[in-house]
Amino acid sequence: MKIHESKIGRVVFARLSEGEDLLEAITLRAEQAKITTGFFILIGALKKAKLGFYREQEYKPIEISEPVEIISCIGNISVKEGEPMIHAHISVSNDKGEAFGGHLLSGCVVSVNAELVLVEAADLRLQRQLDEKTQLHLWDV
Amino acid sequence: MKIHESKIGRVVFARLSEGEDLLEAITLRAEQAKITTGFFILIGALKKAKLGFYREQEYKPIEISEPVEIISCIGNISVKEGEPMIHAHISVSNDKGEAFGGHLLSGCVVSVNAELVLVEAADLRLQRQLDEKTQLHLWDV
Amino acid sequence: MKIHESKIGRVVFARLSEGEDLLEAITLRAEQAKITTGFFILIGALKKAKLGFYREQEYKPIEISEPVEIISCIGNISVKEGEPMIHAHISVSNDKGEAFGGHLLSGCVVSVNAELVLVEAADLRLQRQLDEKTQLHLWDV
Repeated sequence: MKIHESKIGRVVFARLSEGEDLLEAITLRAEQAKITTGFFILIGALKKAKLGFYREQEYKPIEISEPVEIISCIGNISVKEGEPMIHAHISVSNDKGEAFGGHLLSGCVVSVNAELVLVEAADLRLQRQLDEKTQLHLWDV
Repeated sequence: MKIHESKIGRVVFARLSEGEDLLEAITLRAEQAKITTGFFILIGALKKAKLGFYREQEYKPIEISEPVEIISCIGNISVKEGEPMIHAHISVSNDKGEAFGGHLLSGCVVSVNAELVLVEAADLRLQRQLDEKTQLHLWDV
Repeated sequence: MKIHESKIGRVVFARLSEGEDLLEAITLRAEQAKITTGFFILIGALKKAKLGFYREQEYKPIEISEPVEIISCIGNISVKEGEPMIHAHISVSNDKGEAFGGHLLSGCVVSVNAELVLVEAADLRLQRQLDEKTQLHLWDV
């Protein structure tokens, strides 16, 4: 069993802008803060959502074409091919409170507000490598 | 794109009491710990829940009048008009495991247990300002 | 109202292995990292899930016998009878994106990937004590 340890570093807060793609927006803030390894939590709202369900080496997309609250979006930051990569899962709810979730795909569009809190691992540069079997970029196990 | 950085500070653990209003209880612990900026995660259970869905400048309430598990309640702490303000979203589940979620409103009543973990931003006092368009108090974008 | 404060310590990242029991796997990584008090977030996928809904002094199990995404698994680590104990709640989603949740019980089996981020409380050893009324091991309130 491998574990990867680090001192904890800075905490960064950012409000994302209306109309931004959520996955891209988180990636941009991690880059702006120069965080290559860490984790984050986010709450807010979306104009529409695109969630992924992994099977047979790819993410099947699930599209929600109405406004939703982001109940939770949590994930991590590590390095894939030299660049910070966000891996996140997201849970959203509609106007009846019903919850839906999955892997965060491109295609989630920020609505009036989304608030990101990023935490940095201060002295670790955790790497992702392509795993042939799953066709995912994974950490060492 | 604005980001707000801080050194990370203390981590604070608290069990909330049966019968407390969840939103108020989190606010009280942040005040007790003198944390004005930070983030938190919480799990536990509720006697009943009140979730918000934002539209047309206000939160439409969704009420759940039966006991539920708090699957996740995550959010942040920043400063509104000089006082620490909690912004949180919550996901709950009923006895069939079905999940519901939304913005954390007053009216969620703690059941047998709720466990809060608060993390402090050590040298930041992040401000919320009224946004005329949405009538929400938001961070600078 | 009691709160328990600590300096924040290390952050630890670990990928869990296919086939591991999720609750046991998190416990093993906390032990390996020598973290007795802290919190964590986790995302990933399961082959099958077992969620708990607390009532009348026990967790009623809810079983999901198909593959699901772990939308969120968040929780804390503290000490019960001298050993680190994980308390976590989990939210999962099926191939339609429908979300289910509850208390994390043994019986959740890791699928292709699960990514754990653990944060240590550096100078606190938070204790759980048996509460007669609920038959749960709880923190001081």
